[in-house]
Amino acid sequence: MDVNKKYFSNITKRERAIFEGAISMGALFHQFIGTPVNKLSVTSLEIAISKSLELQPAIDHVEVAIDLEKIDGAMSDFDYVSLSGDMLNVKIHSRIDNVLVVVRMEFIEELNYPLMYIEKIIE
Amino acid sequence: MDVNKKYFSNITKRERAIFEGAISMGALFHQFIGTPVNKLSVTSLEIAISKSLELQPAIDHVEVAIDLEKIDGAMSDFDYVSLSGDMLNVKIHSRIDNVLVVVRMEFIEELNYPLMYIEKIIE
Amino acid sequence: MDVNKKYFSNITKRERAIFEGAISMGALFHQFIGTPVNKLSVTSLEIAISKSLELQPAIDHVEVAIDLEKIDGAMSDFDYVSLSGDMLNVKIHSRIDNVLVVVRMEFIEELNYPLMYIEKIIE
Amino acid sequence: MDVNKKYFSNITKRERAIFEGAISMGALFHQFIGTPVNKLSVTSLEIAISKSLELQPAIDHVEVAIDLEKIDGAMSDFDYVSLSGDMLNVKIHSRIDNVLVVVRMEFIEELNYPLMYIEKIIE
Repeated sequence: MDVNKKYFSNITKRERAIFEGAISMGALFHQFIGTPVNKLSVTSLEIAISKSLELQPAIDHVEVAIDLEKIDGAMSDFDYVSLSGDMLNVKIHSRIDNVLVVVRMEFIEELNYPLMYIEKIIE
Repeated sequence: MDVNKKYFSNITKRERAIFEGAISMGALFHQFIGTPVNKLSVTSLEIAISKSLELQPAIDHVEVAIDLEKIDGAMSDFDYVSLSGDMLNVKIHSRIDNVLVVVRMEFIEELNYPLMYIEKIIE
Repeated sequence: MDVNKKYFSNITKRERAIFEGAISMGALFHQFIGTPVNKLSVTSLEIAISKSLELQPAIDHVEVAIDLEKIDGAMSDFDYVSLSGDMLNVKIHSRIDNVLVVVRMEFIEELNYPLMYIEKIIE
Repeated sequence: MDVNKKYFSNITKRERAIFEGAISMGALFHQFIGTPVNKLSVTSLEIAISKSLELQPAIDHVEVAIDLEKIDGAMSDFDYVSLSGDMLNVKIHSRIDNVLVVVRMEFIEELNYPLMYIEKIIE
């Protein structure tokens, strides 16, 4: 089966790159939010998040930065916290042929919301 | 802050509708996969999935159908299963102004994969 | 196979009821944290959480209360929030024969932590 | 606040070790099921799972083995799978003072179920 022809011929390469990057950003948030984390485990979690999402279709590269100050600010008496949206700063690079899209998630204080948007499109 | 102007002026309405629908589909899969389910609980789970994802930006309507035959086929000795991708058939309707996008997820046996694609765009 | 004999003969009924209730409480937290929620969807989410966890072994009854004031306090500009541990108040009733255990989760401000503990054991 | 005295004086050390190990096993399953994985990412995922759960109360050590043959058996056309319960083999070592409990999860074919049980108690 030619998956691209059968399922994706109704959208442009640019739209497909946006589509795939967006799926992976929604996936990332809802898979990993809630994971126990502190400064001892944060690097291993960032790596696992990147490597897992990079497996998804059209995903070239995933940059994940978990904010240690936000972890400290939310710290419990048990020396760890549950990963939450305000701690995450993520860039997902998706590519379809020559079109590269960078989907970004960052917490916007003014919106009190981890906003996902498209940071860059290179065609 | 004008969020649309500040963060989304680099893409078209059509691209934005694709973007938001795709985020919600990735979110849906990774939030709810693994949930215990059987025929007694399936309707309440379908409703909760729909209602939660319909809260996300640009999402008009979410149709979730969990396949009872697939549940039966995966049944454990404890009379329930963990929700998995092959059981899900979903349509997410996202809208930006006059542009409506239907993002679909269905399990494609030939790919052994719960494929997400764009089923329809109405402009 | 006699599962109880093969896998659970090394613990008492009381210990088994504690064990099963605790599994389901850990499951509940990590399955549903991150779910989009507001006052319009909260009841459907509470019902789905209860009904899904009640399927697990030895679970008699699950009471879930999501705190609307906490939702309001965390509200984003997009009129919903991600479910977090401080919003949850849960009682899971597990039973092995004549032994009933109530596992509780509630957010303890002094610990800044959603503590899970055993509220009651009736033998 | 003396958490142990206030919340855990109604159970024995052995029961507390069972309780905490069981919470973490339920947490592990429902946090990470659904994560994209293949042989390239499996080690980073095993490490992140272990390190995150080892942060929880009373957890000494977590051994996670994801079955590469099961991954291969479930492989999709996109060269990865969603982590599922049949791929996981886990031992969680929880300890309260001198009492060590090993909680085990393994997939039991005869039950078609990822069974959680107590493998060992050392007092």
